[in-house]
Amino acid sequence: MSPQLPFNFSDRLATAVKRCGNPVVVGLDPRKDRLPDGLLPTAWGDEVDAIAQAYRSFCYGIIDVVAPLVPAVKPQVAFFEQLGPAGMKVLRQVVRYAQQNELLVILDAKRNDIGSTAEAYADAWLGPEKSAWLGDALTVSPYLGEDSLTPFCQTVNDRGTGIFVLVKTSNPGGGVLQDLVADGKPVYMHVAEMVESLAMSSLGECDFGSVGAVAGATYPEQLAELREAMPHVWFLVPGYGSQGGTAKDVAGAFAPSGLGALVNSSRGIIFAHAREEYREKYGDSQWQKAVELATTEMISSLKSETSAGEL
Amino acid sequence: MSPQLPFNFSDRLATAVKRCGNPVVVGLDPRKDRLPDGLLPTAWGDEVDAIAQAYRSFCYGIIDVVAPLVPAVKPQVAFFEQLGPAGMKVLRQVVRYAQQNELLVILDAKRNDIGSTAEAYADAWLGPEKSAWLGDALTVSPYLGEDSLTPFCQTVNDRGTGIFVLVKTSNPGGGVLQDLVADGKPVYMHVAEMVESLAMSSLGECDFGSVGAVAGATYPEQLAELREAMPHVWFLVPGYGSQGGTAKDVAGAFAPSGLGALVNSSRGIIFAHAREEYREKYGDSQWQKAVELATTEMISSLKSETSAGEL
Repeated sequence: MSPQLPFNFSDRLATAVKRCGNPVVVGLDPRKDRLPDGLLPTAWGDEVDAIAQAYRSFCYGIIDVVAPLVPAVKPQVAFFEQLGPAGMKVLRQVVRYAQQNELLVILDAKRNDIGSTAEAYADAWLGPEKSAWLGDALTVSPYLGEDSLTPFCQTVNDRGTGIFVLVKTSNPGGGVLQDLVADGKPVYMHVAEMVESLAMSSLGECDFGSVGAVAGATYPEQLAELREAMPHVWFLVPGYGSQGGTAKDVAGAFAPSGLGALVNSSRGIIFAHAREEYREKYGDSQWQKAVELATTEMISSLKSETSAGEL
Repeated sequence: MSPQLPFNFSDRLATAVKRCGNPVVVGLDPRKDRLPDGLLPTAWGDEVDAIAQAYRSFCYGIIDVVAPLVPAVKPQVAFFEQLGPAGMKVLRQVVRYAQQNELLVILDAKRNDIGSTAEAYADAWLGPEKSAWLGDALTVSPYLGEDSLTPFCQTVNDRGTGIFVLVKTSNPGGGVLQDLVADGKPVYMHVAEMVESLAMSSLGECDFGSVGAVAGATYPEQLAELREAMPHVWFLVPGYGSQGGTAKDVAGAFAPSGLGALVNSSRGIIFAHAREEYREKYGDSQWQKAVELATTEMISSLKSETSAGEL
C-alpha cells in the first residue's frame, strides 16, 4: 500500500470509493465450465494446474479491465480451494496482482472459529503486507459469538485491515436462522448491534468503522432497517444482478453521502460475455469488452438510483 | 478406502469406533511456537517452507502414534492456512498420510456459503478419493440456513462422506447468538432440529446419519438435551482437556450403545510433552511417548466415565 494512503481500512475504502466515484465491487468467482473459450487449454496436461493457470489468466484479465473503474474486488475463496494447493497459490497471485493495480481486495472466505484458532485465521488472511493471503479485508461468520470476532478485530486495528461480518445473507433460506425472533427482534438485528459496536471501536476519519456487515441485496426493506441500526458500518451487499437484486433494491444500504455501501456483482460482470445482451455482439473472443460494459452499466445504474450519485 | 468398508460415512465411522473400542479424535493443530524442540530447523531458510515441513513431520509423528489407537484425526485448517500455499500443500499430504494409516479424517474448516458456492466448498473438501483436500468429513457453519447445507448433504450422499454442523460451540461467548430464545427454544435447538432431519436423510445401517453436529464439552447439560433432540446424529465434541471439559462432562453426548459421540482433544494430546505431568519424564525428546500416554489416558477416562465403556 502506498505510504500516502490512510492506515485505517475504512478510510482507505472511503478514499478508493471517492476516487472511483462509485461503490462497485467485482466478485472474482472463476468456474471452469463458464470461462470464455480459449482460456482453458485444449490439451489439459496436469489438469488442475492447467485450470489454475486459466483462472489466473481470467482473473488478471478482469483486473486489467476493472482496476481503472472500481475500488475493490472480492475473490471467492471456495473456487480457488476447489483446485487444491495449485488453486490456493493462484489465489495469492491474484490478490497481489489486484493490489498492484490499486484495487482493494476483500477475500470472501466466511471464516471463523473459537479464540486461538480465530487468531490463526486472522493472521492468515488479513494484512496486505504481512499475512499469508494478503487480504485488505475478509468476510467472517458470526455464529460462534462475539468472542470469536475479537481476534479478527484486534488484527483489523493492528494491521489496518477490515472484516465484513455476515448479518443478513442473500440466499432464499438465509432467514431460517437469521429471521428467528428473540427478545423482540430477529437474530440478524442482534448481530447488527454487535457489528455496530465493533465498528465504533475501529472508526476511521470517514466516520465508518473497519468492521463491516454483509447484507444481501435481495432484502431491500431490511437493508434500510439495517442502515439505521448500523450508522457507522460499511455494508458489503451481495445479490446484485444474477441473484435478482437491482440498483433500486440496494438504495437503502447507502448513507446520504453516498458512502457506507459496497455493491458486489460476480457472475453478472465476470461472465458478461455469456449474457444475452452481450453474447452476440462480443461473445467469447471479446469477453473483456463485455466485462467492461457490464461494469460501467452497473456503475451508471447505482449512480442514478442510489445516493452513490453524490460521490 | 478399502473395498470392504461401508460406503456410508456414518457406518464407516461406527466400524472404526468399534474396531478401536473408543471414540477419541485427535486434533491436529500445529503451532510454530509449541512444537517440540528439534522439529523446527535452527537455520530456517525460506521460513514458511521450513515451518510447513516441520508441521508435516510433527503431524506424521502424531499419526504414527495414534493410528493404532483411535478412529479419527481432525486437522484444524486454520493453522495450515496460516502458512499460505506451502501450508495447504502439507495439509493435503497430512490428510493422505492419515488415511493411509486407516484413520478417518475430519477436516475442521467451518466452511459455508450460499448455494452454488457451497457446492464448490463441498466439492473441494469432501471425498477421500475425488476432492482437492480429500476429507472424509468436514465441519460446516449453519448461519446461512438450511439451503446452504443442501449442497453439502448432496455430496455427503454422493461420495460417502460426512459433515458436522456447528450447533453449540465450546467457547465462552458461543451463547451470545446460540442461546437466544426464539419460538420458545434457543437458536441452537432450532439448528439441532434441522441437523436431526438432515441426519435422517443420510442414515446408515448403524442408525446414525452422516450429517453430524458439533456440540462442546463445556456445556454438559446441553449435551444431554441435544442427544435427546438428535437421536440419529453423531456428535463431534470439542472442548475436552485444555478447554476444561472432562470425561464426566461429555457422558451425555453418547447413546447407550457407546456410539454417537466423538470426543476431540487437540492441545492436550499433541502438546502433551509440555504438560506438567509429562514434561519431566518425557519432555521434548520423547514427545511421541507423551502423545501416546495422553491418548491412552483419555481413552481410559472416557471408557470408565461414559457409555463408550460398552464398545
